[in-house]
Amino acid sequence: MGTVVALSGQVGGAKLADGLYRLRGRDLAVLVNTGDDYEHLGLAFSPDLDSVLYALAGIASQSSGWEPAGETRALYAMLKTLGGPDRPILGDKSLAAPLLRAHGLRQDRGLTEITLEFCRQLGIEARVLPMSDDPVRTHVLTADGAVPFPEYFNELACDPPALGFQYAGAEDARISEAVLDVLHSNDLEAVVIGPCNPFHSIRPILEVNGLRQLLRKRGAPVIAVTPIVGGKALTGSAGKMMRELGREVSARSVAMEYYKLVDGFVIDGADADQAEGILACGMQVVVAQTVMRNLEDRVRLAQTVLDFARTIRERRLQEA
Amino acid sequence: MGTVVALSGQVGGAKLADGLYRLRGRDLAVLVNTGDDYEHLGLAFSPDLDSVLYALAGIASQSSGWEPAGETRALYAMLKTLGGPDRPILGDKSLAAPLLRAHGLRQDRGLTEITLEFCRQLGIEARVLPMSDDPVRTHVLTADGAVPFPEYFNELACDPPALGFQYAGAEDARISEAVLDVLHSNDLEAVVIGPCNPFHSIRPILEVNGLRQLLRKRGAPVIAVTPIVGGKALTGSAGKMMRELGREVSARSVAMEYYKLVDGFVIDGADADQAEGILACGMQVVVAQTVMRNLEDRVRLAQTVLDFARTIRERRLQEA
Repeated sequence: MGTVVALSGQVGGAKLADGLYRLRGRDLAVLVNTGDDYEHLGLAFSPDLDSVLYALAGIASQSSGWEPAGETRALYAMLKTLGGPDRPILGDKSLAAPLLRAHGLRQDRGLTEITLEFCRQLGIEARVLPMSDDPVRTHVLTADGAVPFPEYFNELACDPPALGFQYAGAEDARISEAVLDVLHSNDLEAVVIGPCNPFHSIRPILEVNGLRQLLRKRGAPVIAVTPIVGGKALTGSAGKMMRELGREVSARSVAMEYYKLVDGFVIDGADADQAEGILACGMQVVVAQTVMRNLEDRVRLAQTVLDFARTIRERRLQEA
Repeated sequence: MGTVVALSGQVGGAKLADGLYRLRGRDLAVLVNTGDDYEHLGLAFSPDLDSVLYALAGIASQSSGWEPAGETRALYAMLKTLGGPDRPILGDKSLAAPLLRAHGLRQDRGLTEITLEFCRQLGIEARVLPMSDDPVRTHVLTADGAVPFPEYFNELACDPPALGFQYAGAEDARISEAVLDVLHSNDLEAVVIGPCNPFHSIRPILEVNGLRQLLRKRGAPVIAVTPIVGGKALTGSAGKMMRELGREVSARSVAMEYYKLVDGFVIDGADADQAEGILACGMQVVVAQTVMRNLEDRVRLAQTVLDFARTIRERRLQEA
């Protein structure tokens, strides 16, 4: 068994990463979107990194996977009493990582180093890696101009129609040494794109200078899991954004976003009728239960993805 | 009735300030020690300012007046899980002010402006004023050299014998405009020194360049309340420090610290036998119940102090 690389953002990505982690432990590396990162009150928020950390450490809330279980909001209540900002709403436990992260960054430690130290402290054997140590900031293009994603999400509640996306800094962002090491593993077995918003979770990772090309060049099967089931996003705003961008809200439409990148696409049983259309894009398709309600679901979906990758590898060997 | 100025540090100072506030409301100004301030994880801790704010806002814990009532430590627990520092122990609610304060300071707002905004938000009509907007840092001189007070307190648990104190920055610290305004009030009625550690709560205030002189020059009666009752400090390390500094641990000994500054000294009923010795230092003395167990005690002691000041003023008028 070789190295498995997962691309992750949001809770869907974290859940699938968790499933892969249960199967592969230290052989898993998770490349995490940092395009949604932001600074607030001097703290360094990395929502997608923290979602993965909490999931893999087994301390994430079941219902709100972006924060630890049993979250409280005592600091936030006092902050408002003192005239601090209403938004974003802050959880007590959830503030620890942004606080330590900001402190580390001010001491000129890299985001990767800080994140790997969190992994060590949390007993996570997999490598959770920011997509880059350099800042990339996703902006949503709206009728009123480009809005940083955290502002679009926290302050505008994703309300203004999304007309497009920009990934500020991506062109200059360097792939970190740790990510290069992972992608150059001799035993690279599969690259897994989680069931995440393609626009602000996965695209920022792919836009890091040279990363998309490197993924393709490495030759390991790239498998994506649909974030759209039965014509809507499981959580988050992917469906709304696709509609606003003039795209069909469907698994097939997500598959098109990954055209030329992805070898295999996993769709939900509810969308089995789209398999043919996706095959026509030159991807392999597997139909599975993609909704992850519990740990068993996560592990089963992860196994499906790994089996899918093996099938593709074996087929290639036969064809060669 | 005129303006009352209280000098405050620690919980004892905050309690007496609270008593004065109940009696005088907006006519009270509290000059607060910032020599114990420190930065930790990028947050700006001002323990003495916060103690006063919580007390005057009526949200302080009854048993641990340096923090809000009902404090929790969820963030701190997660911080330790992530490998963060064990000390100081951090409360969730207590972190809000240091977080907002650090944010304000980074935006080049002054500590006075930030503190007055906290007052406004908390509905405090009195002026709570840092002794200076410039940093003053109290150091404890130990056999191993000068240790910043927060380190002496948080990390060394006040263990090494105190051989002396230094107030780094005090000489260059400017009295703020707000403090100047207060001390130049035409109706200045009394200056009250709370029952605080004289070395690291009151002395730093007095050491701000020109402040001690200004207090004397203004001519309003200066009344101090003993922090030592029955030969020991009510709370904190004043007794231990006095012993290590080779001083008698007594109310009289504290009175000597304020020689030439204080017109009247309030001692506890338990120490009535020291009245004569203190009178011999040229101070007036009042014996009262100085232990403040509840709001009634605070208000009664505050009234005693204000009556004492009035008596001294009246005597001066008679003598003039």
